[in-house]
Amino acid sequence: MDQFRIEKDSMGEVKVPNDKYWGAQTERSYENFKIGIEKMPVEIVRAFALLKGACALANQEFGKLDDKRAAAIEQACDEAFDGKLDGNFPLAVWQTGSGTQSNMNMNEVFANRAIEILGGNFRDKASLSKDQLVHPNDHVNMSQSSNDTFPSALSIMSVVETTNYLLPRLEGLEKALYAKSEEFKDLIKSGRTHLQDATPLTLGQEFSGYASMLTHSREAILAALEPCRELAIGGTAVGTGINSPEGFGAKVAEILTKKTGLKFKDAPNKFHALTSHDAVCLLQGALAGLAADLMKIANDIRWLASGPRCGLGEINIPANEPGSSIMPGKVNPTQCEAVTMVAVQVMGNATCINFAASQGNFELNVFKPVIAYNLIQSIKNLADVMKSFEIHCVTGITANKERLHDLMERSLMLVTALSPLVGYMNAAKIAHYAHVNNKSLKEAALELQLCTAEQFDQYVDPTKMIHPNPVKKCCCGK
Amino acid sequence: MDQFRIEKDSMGEVKVPNDKYWGAQTERSYENFKIGIEKMPVEIVRAFALLKGACALANQEFGKLDDKRAAAIEQACDEAFDGKLDGNFPLAVWQTGSGTQSNMNMNEVFANRAIEILGGNFRDKASLSKDQLVHPNDHVNMSQSSNDTFPSALSIMSVVETTNYLLPRLEGLEKALYAKSEEFKDLIKSGRTHLQDATPLTLGQEFSGYASMLTHSREAILAALEPCRELAIGGTAVGTGINSPEGFGAKVAEILTKKTGLKFKDAPNKFHALTSHDAVCLLQGALAGLAADLMKIANDIRWLASGPRCGLGEINIPANEPGSSIMPGKVNPTQCEAVTMVAVQVMGNATCINFAASQGNFELNVFKPVIAYNLIQSIKNLADVMKSFEIHCVTGITANKERLHDLMERSLMLVTALSPLVGYMNAAKIAHYAHVNNKSLKEAALELQLCTAEQFDQYVDPTKMIHPNPVKKCCCGK
Amino acid sequence: MDQFRIEKDSMGEVKVPNDKYWGAQTERSYENFKIGIEKMPVEIVRAFALLKGACALANQEFGKLDDKRAAAIEQACDEAFDGKLDGNFPLAVWQTGSGTQSNMNMNEVFANRAIEILGGNFRDKASLSKDQLVHPNDHVNMSQSSNDTFPSALSIMSVVETTNYLLPRLEGLEKALYAKSEEFKDLIKSGRTHLQDATPLTLGQEFSGYASMLTHSREAILAALEPCRELAIGGTAVGTGINSPEGFGAKVAEILTKKTGLKFKDAPNKFHALTSHDAVCLLQGALAGLAADLMKIANDIRWLASGPRCGLGEINIPANEPGSSIMPGKVNPTQCEAVTMVAVQVMGNATCINFAASQGNFELNVFKPVIAYNLIQSIKNLADVMKSFEIHCVTGITANKERLHDLMERSLMLVTALSPLVGYMNAAKIAHYAHVNNKSLKEAALELQLCTAEQFDQYVDPTKMIHPNPVKKCCCGK
Amino acid sequence: MDQFRIEKDSMGEVKVPNDKYWGAQTERSYENFKIGIEKMPVEIVRAFALLKGACALANQEFGKLDDKRAAAIEQACDEAFDGKLDGNFPLAVWQTGSGTQSNMNMNEVFANRAIEILGGNFRDKASLSKDQLVHPNDHVNMSQSSNDTFPSALSIMSVVETTNYLLPRLEGLEKALYAKSEEFKDLIKSGRTHLQDATPLTLGQEFSGYASMLTHSREAILAALEPCRELAIGGTAVGTGINSPEGFGAKVAEILTKKTGLKFKDAPNKFHALTSHDAVCLLQGALAGLAADLMKIANDIRWLASGPRCGLGEINIPANEPGSSIMPGKVNPTQCEAVTMVAVQVMGNATCINFAASQGNFELNVFKPVIAYNLIQSIKNLADVMKSFEIHCVTGITANKERLHDLMERSLMLVTALSPLVGYMNAAKIAHYAHVNNKSLKEAALELQLCTAEQFDQYVDPTKMIHPNPVKKCCCGK
Repeated sequence: MDQFRIEKDSMGEVKVPNDKYWGAQTERSYENFKIGIEKMPVEIVRAFALLKGACALANQEFGKLDDKRAAAIEQACDEAFDGKLDGNFPLAVWQTGSGTQSNMNMNEVFANRAIEILGGNFRDKASLSKDQLVHPNDHVNMSQSSNDTFPSALSIMSVVETTNYLLPRLEGLEKALYAKSEEFKDLIKSGRTHLQDATPLTLGQEFSGYASMLTHSREAILAALEPCRELAIGGTAVGTGINSPEGFGAKVAEILTKKTGLKFKDAPNKFHALTSHDAVCLLQGALAGLAADLMKIANDIRWLASGPRCGLGEINIPANEPGSSIMPGKVNPTQCEAVTMVAVQVMGNATCINFAASQGNFELNVFKPVIAYNLIQSIKNLADVMKSFEIHCVTGITANKERLHDLMERSLMLVTALSPLVGYMNAAKIAHYAHVNNKSLKEAALELQLCTAEQFDQYVDPTKMIHPNPVKKCCCGK
Repeated sequence: MDQFRIEKDSMGEVKVPNDKYWGAQTERSYENFKIGIEKMPVEIVRAFALLKGACALANQEFGKLDDKRAAAIEQACDEAFDGKLDGNFPLAVWQTGSGTQSNMNMNEVFANRAIEILGGNFRDKASLSKDQLVHPNDHVNMSQSSNDTFPSALSIMSVVETTNYLLPRLEGLEKALYAKSEEFKDLIKSGRTHLQDATPLTLGQEFSGYASMLTHSREAILAALEPCRELAIGGTAVGTGINSPEGFGAKVAEILTKKTGLKFKDAPNKFHALTSHDAVCLLQGALAGLAADLMKIANDIRWLASGPRCGLGEINIPANEPGSSIMPGKVNPTQCEAVTMVAVQVMGNATCINFAASQGNFELNVFKPVIAYNLIQSIKNLADVMKSFEIHCVTGITANKERLHDLMERSLMLVTALSPLVGYMNAAKIAHYAHVNNKSLKEAALELQLCTAEQFDQYVDPTKMIHPNPVKKCCCGK
Repeated sequence: MDQFRIEKDSMGEVKVPNDKYWGAQTERSYENFKIGIEKMPVEIVRAFALLKGACALANQEFGKLDDKRAAAIEQACDEAFDGKLDGNFPLAVWQTGSGTQSNMNMNEVFANRAIEILGGNFRDKASLSKDQLVHPNDHVNMSQSSNDTFPSALSIMSVVETTNYLLPRLEGLEKALYAKSEEFKDLIKSGRTHLQDATPLTLGQEFSGYASMLTHSREAILAALEPCRELAIGGTAVGTGINSPEGFGAKVAEILTKKTGLKFKDAPNKFHALTSHDAVCLLQGALAGLAADLMKIANDIRWLASGPRCGLGEINIPANEPGSSIMPGKVNPTQCEAVTMVAVQVMGNATCINFAASQGNFELNVFKPVIAYNLIQSIKNLADVMKSFEIHCVTGITANKERLHDLMERSLMLVTALSPLVGYMNAAKIAHYAHVNNKSLKEAALELQLCTAEQFDQYVDPTKMIHPNPVKKCCCGK
Repeated sequence: MDQFRIEKDSMGEVKVPNDKYWGAQTERSYENFKIGIEKMPVEIVRAFALLKGACALANQEFGKLDDKRAAAIEQACDEAFDGKLDGNFPLAVWQTGSGTQSNMNMNEVFANRAIEILGGNFRDKASLSKDQLVHPNDHVNMSQSSNDTFPSALSIMSVVETTNYLLPRLEGLEKALYAKSEEFKDLIKSGRTHLQDATPLTLGQEFSGYASMLTHSREAILAALEPCRELAIGGTAVGTGINSPEGFGAKVAEILTKKTGLKFKDAPNKFHALTSHDAVCLLQGALAGLAADLMKIANDIRWLASGPRCGLGEINIPANEPGSSIMPGKVNPTQCEAVTMVAVQVMGNATCINFAASQGNFELNVFKPVIAYNLIQSIKNLADVMKSFEIHCVTGITANKERLHDLMERSLMLVTALSPLVGYMNAAKIAHYAHVNNKSLKEAALELQLCTAEQFDQYVDPTKMIHPNPVKKCCCGK
């Protein structure tokens, strides 16, 4: 086999590596865009594989594509989805902003592979029988345009990867946090607001807040996914659907829904679908919310675990690797740090996505690859880091019960419970007196003669301070 | 009346301007935070007024607050909502990150005003009867904390201002764009992708894309508003609800829902509600999507109106003011420019919000005022600029029919319609030949002998290129 | 005096409030852009006043403007700079993106005020003698265009406000931090990296890091100011300098340099000067660096002051106001919080500025007002918050000497000093053994028989751990 | 050779792939951080190689490291710099935020390779002679800590890659644009501001603006590089320099300066150097300025080349690949689109960098890998895309002379030249009259009797409108 073969496109002939399925346009783009190390994400390739397989079936149903070619194209697509054609999608993210060359990369690879499936030798197009010829544009791209396939692939990727990859990992962490919340439900500790001592709560309540963050983020992500279900396909070049059969988009959506088990819809306005990425902006917002939540959780956990002797030291986290190359015996909250770094990356990606989404002109937005790249980086890395954080950190967290109890007992903010009895101003006086004179609250209260010892003990009971007042007590006789 | 009076708080006495309702803590914060020109937004004041009125009623229902004080506080709140107490909320955005001093500003103003309503002289506290005394902390702030009121006010502001202010203006623009889409539905024009000539569509279709953007953004905003309906109130200082009656949050939500006609809910986890702003991140995403859409629309419109003699010139926009201080007679797309400037501001605000939302610690996030400030700036300015754009630009747009037609007729991309007949490669040849030899497509097609004149006329018919192929035609006998 | 008078521009007549100096174009813009509450910043007005005064003098020098008109215009500008014409600049930030109407606002106000100075009645243009007539376009805007005046005003504002407002406040905080560094230079404490205990340093060293941040940021800002010194003036409408005398830009820069004592330069390429805002991007980067530094400093200080009983408690910060509306006696790090909120705002503004700077087209960038607004907000608020932080927080910081000492003594990371003696692996063993068995390092080292008590005492001496090893000791006999 | 071998660190034994040089800590991190696809950038590896080689030499000079070990370590580092050890640096960006495990990865690889160089078998540590043993911590990391090596590597990477990789590519594009500016210097065209026709300029002047953008950005980048030259090395664990010899930082900087030919300095305050990334914020600003400029240039060029028949069509750009998968013969500005996508990525990275830079705590900022990743992505991709843009687009640009001339001739904004003669208001009338009645300016001027034909021809001469007025003419007799 020669090292290279000649492939043709509408601009002429191009030399292509002979062991690759790609054709002339892929090669041109590969040569013309030597920019960076970022390749078109594999998740986009998989989404394209789903899409183009469904398009082949739809074209078949509409009588535009014969059964054999349709089956061959579908098989090629399935192989690509399964990763069997990996190595054939070499193009950079930094290419044309419509992703046209990546669309053509798919068309060329699927066409040549389909030729093979049909028994032909794609390296020698002249040798093919009429039935074996599968053309990238005329067959694989039939009823399609880069302009409607790329945004459709972006939508499919969003729905598939978020649903099948991100959400399970989110749920894993969510469950781990709820489990810890349950485990720690009886450990009363000092609250902290403004980093200052505040009224008590249980460590379980604190972790329930973390878990609830994931619950809320999960719901936000699910809501944000809805507009991503709308597919541009059927709009072709400019949204009018030129050269596609009426109903093509709806048919493709139906096939995809059936194949993936995930809901997809025909976008109701294709001019919107080709030019707007408002759906991705919304999803970005949901992911930023998750990132913000994760940053807060990871920060809290590394702070609660700070020490071992000069920090808060309320919890312990697993020691996974030596923490310092110079300070022996140091153990660092490395998983927390990975979480927070992913979080700031997601924030940066949010800026990039918002900006890119705003830059459409007329019938197209040509910032699609950079949107896809940032979106999947956020989705994948959030997913991975949640999994890592769950298994390497959260599940191994233990509580330092004594430390929790000691700190709580000393907190001046238990005085808040006296407020209903002595009023806010007097309660403030007690706290201040205790602080300045380094006394306990009880000592201060008694010395200031603002309540009796019995009253103090009745009111200042941490176990009563971790929930609202039972209504009967405060309802004055009703 | 003296120019100043003395007010007290738990730290001592403070001199306060006598013509103001505020008290000691407001004055302290006013003096200690001379930063920038940005004041706590009036929309936050209104949200606080709604909230604290509802809290007074809830405290009354729980038997904690007597009827007279409750009514007086409610009246004071209503007055504040109506703007009658304007001038009494002087604090900077750049204060404590819990908004504690703004919460106290409300408490102090509402308390002093309530004293007045009860017939007392708030300037002379010693003169008050026991029934006339309304204390900022013990009465107005009863069952509350800054830590649950500020996030509740943020939620209320989000829901109220988005629903009552933003969405009506969005709908106004949406309708104006749909009307233009209808008006222009028969004007066929050349499409443009990558700024390059593309297959035709109608100007009405183009505008339908804009209108659909607003429809999609409206739906995204509505979805994003859902989590904002959850109120932190009832969580008090750290989320446990200390010093509040059980069921307080649910009661306040119920009262607010009734009063505003807008749905509010008791946040299911108060630890989440005090520390997470994932709801605002999601809303930010929806607003960024709207901003991105508006930027695209405004850019398109100023491009379509570019000229008058050296640009695209397909539409005319109203001339509202002289465009240039040096070039006489110039008319510029100034409304479009205001839209695009608001859009980039919203993107900047998105960054700020995401960042701020991630910075919570333990039982509180202390970036609430900056979040509120950025959020309402995005909401209000998007609303205002859509209204301005609608009335000063969109409704006055007219089409240059001749120009639209001339450009369309000359476009080489009509060749796309020949693709199903002659194949993609031959169609490309025709376009290339026409371009290089400065011929019409028909001339090129015939000279290259790739189709007959009859075929050309049958296929290359712009009126057939603005929609998908009717299915009957392509279904091969089915 | 009637409430309104009629003013004219090239589009016709407009009714204008009679007590204002502004004219027809200002009024049109005021009516057409009812968007948001953000007005053109006063700092831009002042920069325009400097600029237009200098332009009048330059026109006089070039013989284009007679001495009397030039003097009258200059006087009007000086009055505006001094704030005497406040109330006459009512336009929104959200207007045309060239700031044309704000340029015209200046032209109109300065022209009418100049008429007054020349003894005329600007309310009755027909009554004016030929010598009294000062025209907004033909005289005040002579040799100028909005397109070169607005970017020039932006440059002037950047240089003037940064130099005269921001940097003095930065230096104030810088000095306060160096003073604290000196004050705390003998207090050895435990270092913290990853929030985990690390080798010791002095509190003075820690504060020297903060002070050095401000030193570095000051130098970065000064470097970033250099390109801002280039003025667009002289480029007029599109950069060619049409209708301006050759050398106009250089002359204006010279006059401004003399007047302000700050260096300004003639921009070497006016096409760049009208369309690029790379200078503002660089300045944004310097300000973001300062914001990042301030955020770190403020975070550290609030953490070091955390407690009073459940936190780190190594330092005390001033108590400026009651910290909580529900928890009596609580004192919060409110100044730190204002700092961190300003910091995130500056980050958001950075996004907005970068985005806006990228959106130029052909001979102009029409995002100038939004750039000016974000830039001055960052400059002013950073300046104000540094001043506030300095006087209300930093100067009042005191050290908790006992606490610092106690924590340091207990730190396991003192083991690092043993590394050169026993090797990294054995040192790690000692730390681990001490931690697990809750022993002191010395106990652990001796029990593990890894060094003698004498060796331990010689090596593990915190006072030797706060600086590099003196070279003589480690140079093995050299 | 077995597939795995056992390596040890302070936490115990780990199984490591036998064909790799890395050791226990690398392996732990590799297993514990399965997050995303982003690996520690190769440019960071190269910077570490430079740094650790210099550290070995410095340790040798201080008499801490013997000559043979120093030479072996240096050789290993040189090999790594040259890419000969590629495949041995497998760690994710998303690891500990100090980059400790990447520092250890370097230490382990360089140590094992140095053992080999010294003739030992690193796979069997027990077999090594005392002279052959090179320990990752005790020798390679001697006088160092991750906490000072990683920020030093970040600084080195910034200086080296910006100077040697980015700036040459920037200069290439700068020269290409200046060459085009020269080539097009006589082609007068209509200017455009607000996308509306404006006064004329030459196409060469327009391109000179682009070139000047690159000149300005180059200078900004050079200025922003200055603070990056300061190295943290010598600060070790917390900035005090514990376990390093006095003067170590200065010595390393000196060695590096000599080796690279690029200036490096000893950071004057190591506490700053470990915790602040203000230098990267400034550099980010300079890069954002470049990105903004490139976005503007690429947008202009694709707009000027828009068409071929329905756009502006003033220039032609090279056709590098078929532009559309559905519209035959379409050629798109794909290089411009790659530029604009890289630009928005750089903006997103700016957000991420600013955010990360603000998140230091106490003696360390643990967001270093994410900062390094974003920074080098911006540097590398800006460099690559400028090169690609230069060779595949800019150098191939040609002017459509007739189109340029035709549009210019028709522009109404030539009327600006009449302003000095007839006044702004009358000039506006002429333009308006011409526009409404579809006349030429001359016809309009004469019909309105505002000037004579001779005057018109004298004043309205495009060749006189592309520069300021020669001073003699306007100096009234002086």
